[in-house]
Amino acid sequence: MDGLPPLIDQHSHGAVHGELGLGSFETHLAAAVGARGPAPVGTTYFDSLTGLAIRRWCPPLLGLEPRCPPARYLARRREVGAYRAGRLLLRGSGIGTFLLEAGAPGELTSACELATAAGTGAHEIVRLEPLAEQVADTSGSVDSFLGYTAEALYAAAQHATAFASGAAHCDGHAPGAGEVRRAADRWLCGRRPGERLGEPTLVRHLLWSAVAAGLPVQLHCRDPRPLAGFLRATAGIGPDLVLLPRAPHHRRAAELAAVHPHVYADAGPCPEETLGRAPFGKLLFSSGARGLPELYVTGAQRFLRAMGRLVREWADEGLCGAEDGRRITEMVGSGTARRVYRLSAEAG
Amino acid sequence: MDGLPPLIDQHSHGAVHGELGLGSFETHLAAAVGARGPAPVGTTYFDSLTGLAIRRWCPPLLGLEPRCPPARYLARRREVGAYRAGRLLLRGSGIGTFLLEAGAPGELTSACELATAAGTGAHEIVRLEPLAEQVADTSGSVDSFLGYTAEALYAAAQHATAFASGAAHCDGHAPGAGEVRRAADRWLCGRRPGERLGEPTLVRHLLWSAVAAGLPVQLHCRDPRPLAGFLRATAGIGPDLVLLPRAPHHRRAAELAAVHPHVYADAGPCPEETLGRAPFGKLLFSSGARGLPELYVTGAQRFLRAMGRLVREWADEGLCGAEDGRRITEMVGSGTARRVYRLSAEAG
Amino acid sequence: MDGLPPLIDQHSHGAVHGELGLGSFETHLAAAVGARGPAPVGTTYFDSLTGLAIRRWCPPLLGLEPRCPPARYLARRREVGAYRAGRLLLRGSGIGTFLLEAGAPGELTSACELATAAGTGAHEIVRLEPLAEQVADTSGSVDSFLGYTAEALYAAAQHATAFASGAAHCDGHAPGAGEVRRAADRWLCGRRPGERLGEPTLVRHLLWSAVAAGLPVQLHCRDPRPLAGFLRATAGIGPDLVLLPRAPHHRRAAELAAVHPHVYADAGPCPEETLGRAPFGKLLFSSGARGLPELYVTGAQRFLRAMGRLVREWADEGLCGAEDGRRITEMVGSGTARRVYRLSAEAG
Repeated sequence: MDGLPPLIDQHSHGAVHGELGLGSFETHLAAAVGARGPAPVGTTYFDSLTGLAIRRWCPPLLGLEPRCPPARYLARRREVGAYRAGRLLLRGSGIGTFLLEAGAPGELTSACELATAAGTGAHEIVRLEPLAEQVADTSGSVDSFLGYTAEALYAAAQHATAFASGAAHCDGHAPGAGEVRRAADRWLCGRRPGERLGEPTLVRHLLWSAVAAGLPVQLHCRDPRPLAGFLRATAGIGPDLVLLPRAPHHRRAAELAAVHPHVYADAGPCPEETLGRAPFGKLLFSSGARGLPELYVTGAQRFLRAMGRLVREWADEGLCGAEDGRRITEMVGSGTARRVYRLSAEAG
Repeated sequence: MDGLPPLIDQHSHGAVHGELGLGSFETHLAAAVGARGPAPVGTTYFDSLTGLAIRRWCPPLLGLEPRCPPARYLARRREVGAYRAGRLLLRGSGIGTFLLEAGAPGELTSACELATAAGTGAHEIVRLEPLAEQVADTSGSVDSFLGYTAEALYAAAQHATAFASGAAHCDGHAPGAGEVRRAADRWLCGRRPGERLGEPTLVRHLLWSAVAAGLPVQLHCRDPRPLAGFLRATAGIGPDLVLLPRAPHHRRAAELAAVHPHVYADAGPCPEETLGRAPFGKLLFSSGARGLPELYVTGAQRFLRAMGRLVREWADEGLCGAEDGRRITEMVGSGTARRVYRLSAEAG
Repeated sequence: MDGLPPLIDQHSHGAVHGELGLGSFETHLAAAVGARGPAPVGTTYFDSLTGLAIRRWCPPLLGLEPRCPPARYLARRREVGAYRAGRLLLRGSGIGTFLLEAGAPGELTSACELATAAGTGAHEIVRLEPLAEQVADTSGSVDSFLGYTAEALYAAAQHATAFASGAAHCDGHAPGAGEVRRAADRWLCGRRPGERLGEPTLVRHLLWSAVAAGLPVQLHCRDPRPLAGFLRATAGIGPDLVLLPRAPHHRRAAELAAVHPHVYADAGPCPEETLGRAPFGKLLFSSGARGLPELYVTGAQRFLRAMGRLVREWADEGLCGAEDGRRITEMVGSGTARRVYRLSAEAG
């Protein structure tokens, strides 16, 4: 669609540093298709829908023909150099703004590195659980843990664009101070250094603290239904919430976004399944990319082509004209993200 | 499809009375897209698939171009007058017979009012729970409650076309008399006036009483699986049962309709998902409209266009010819409803 | 697609012997559409997607026009004779190799009979539960039951191509010897002759024994998630496992196949839902046919036409060329089955 402004990618984890050979590229590709190990002997993860999409959309950005053999593409990638290949892929992805949930430093690009490579804007999303884990690694008592966590959360709210949480369920009441103290005590006592935070009361406490801090909160969930009480209870009092469910729960997330004015949902890998279930202004694009910069390209293309198909179908039925179609695609692709995450128009 | 007889809409709740301004129209539109509050600032529920469908199909029925701006459509609606606009929309909807589950009098059209406005047939569906609630509002003892409920149910069976229930689960045994008395006693004692009936044993008792009365029963459920025992137990002994599940449970409902000869299912908003899962003669059309008369138009168009697409796909694969396609569409659109609800051919 | 090698059907139960009149054909058709009884008066199970497919693809194999009336088709079927009709249907199905899970002798064709009728290769899949039930029918003590079951399983492993189990759930630990003895004692004591094996510990014991025997194991499950622990625990130590879930769980099965290198999944009735969720090399075709030989024809056609549609869509988006499309269809249609079930190229 001509004249469409660059996409805003509301969720990704950044790209790997350094050169990738056939083996290490395939390892990252395995993660992208959800695999825990190497492909069975005689097969390759390039034989997947993600593999086909990489071969279709990425070679032209490095000066090759679409669908060239994987070995040829990887040779060209090394020839160009990982850093420059990453720049070419990111700048050719059609994404103008990245909302990045950075992980441990060094492994994947930070928001700043991604912005530099892409020559565009990148904003930081702060995940709540690792923030509390870092505090726990250095604080001795329940009091200092809770106090420093509150401070760290407040400090993050000054520079971050949104918070994110992996809370699997959360009801409609912030846990009381005594309950939080007991949970913190239990968790800190039993905790080994580096252990991840899964204590349900503490996770709920972090979530309610984030709501009080006023930034939008991304909710990464499997099935969004166990969060229904939290969604109901925060209507009218808190910031916007954005559901990012795991497949196949995108339909359900879209339905919950339809119900509550302050709740939004990821448009998901198949926007044709969500756009019939929520008003268009409640759905947002994300690539979900992690590792290969190629995944930003394929995520954006998957979205744009699915929207193009959908809008063409609607136009065939007379449901929308070209202008409405472009407007809806822009809304899901960038407009709603700009509004929800309060991004200025020029900065992306 | 030319020559198709008018649709029979097996489930709706009627249309609102009175004029609708931009605000009140949007409030009813919000309910239609599943929202509990106003659209976020700067957005409108017209930007939804339902909104696009209203703008596509309704303006021509009031003498305007398809896809005219919402404000223009609403101005024309007021100019024509709510009553006449309702008539034009209902008569242009393609629905020839309405099976109406009426709510509290005054808010929405009754079956009789709908029939007059549409110039066609309308039949009453009696919901079991409100019937028992009304009896409870006026009866003093368990005995009188149970006796009068049985009488009210018997009286309703004389004029209604079917019963409906919202039972979430029901096993294969009618509850015994003692169990029902204890449940009624518990419920009546704790009940505030006007409170809805959710007591599981009483709901099951109503359902089994309705089966004994011999009318078809519509089962409004979220997921139909907790009704499986009831479906099994009523095979061969009772009247037809029709599952009307909430999205996304239509596939499952179609599968259960395939299993049991006396069980039917709503074809749902996406008949392409159900027509592969049950024989065509086990699925029925409904609009599910409530509030805006426009929703009868969009419900019927959504169904007819989805069936048209499906039949064209099947024809492209050689699976059916034009005549088979028309016959299948008629079966789901009206023929099966006529058979299940014993509607005479001329009266709709 | 020209030049595609014959399909390998990884799962079916064989075809009925003997002539079929209109009534008995409809009875088998009822089973194929999931129904437990005859179609409602005035309707026929030929009015279903399966019915349309039979009328489209089978009459030409018996020398009739596609979509001829059911009565005409059945008359022709009798004229040709059941045995010869079965041969013509099987040989025209496009399936070159059958992996057959045979039931009780006499009702349905055995692997050997099917191979003779189809003029091609057929391999036996041994279901674990009936194997243990047969041992239980003739053994007096827990010791002899467990010993003879182990021997029967070992003997089966010498000639079978794979095992199959209907275990609904299985965790990551083989049950201990004492636990198995107690479960066997309990089950054998309470068992009536001919009773089916559903005792969870014994089912898990059989499954772990089958893994130890080294053959691939087909897992027939409703929802594959309760098997997740077993899938994780067998990674790297055992043979390949193939998930064959009930609808609508094929997407989930494909996702689990994507995760574990040794886990595969049935491509299901709608390969467009699974091929985006697992690498192509982790999905396999099956007809699931039982009873009517027509179901081999419709199962194969449904698969080939769905793959054709999918590959055309991908080609339209530039995602794959003709050669890649053919290669992917061959992989799912036969190549992966040949690898997983270790079938020689010539024998199918």
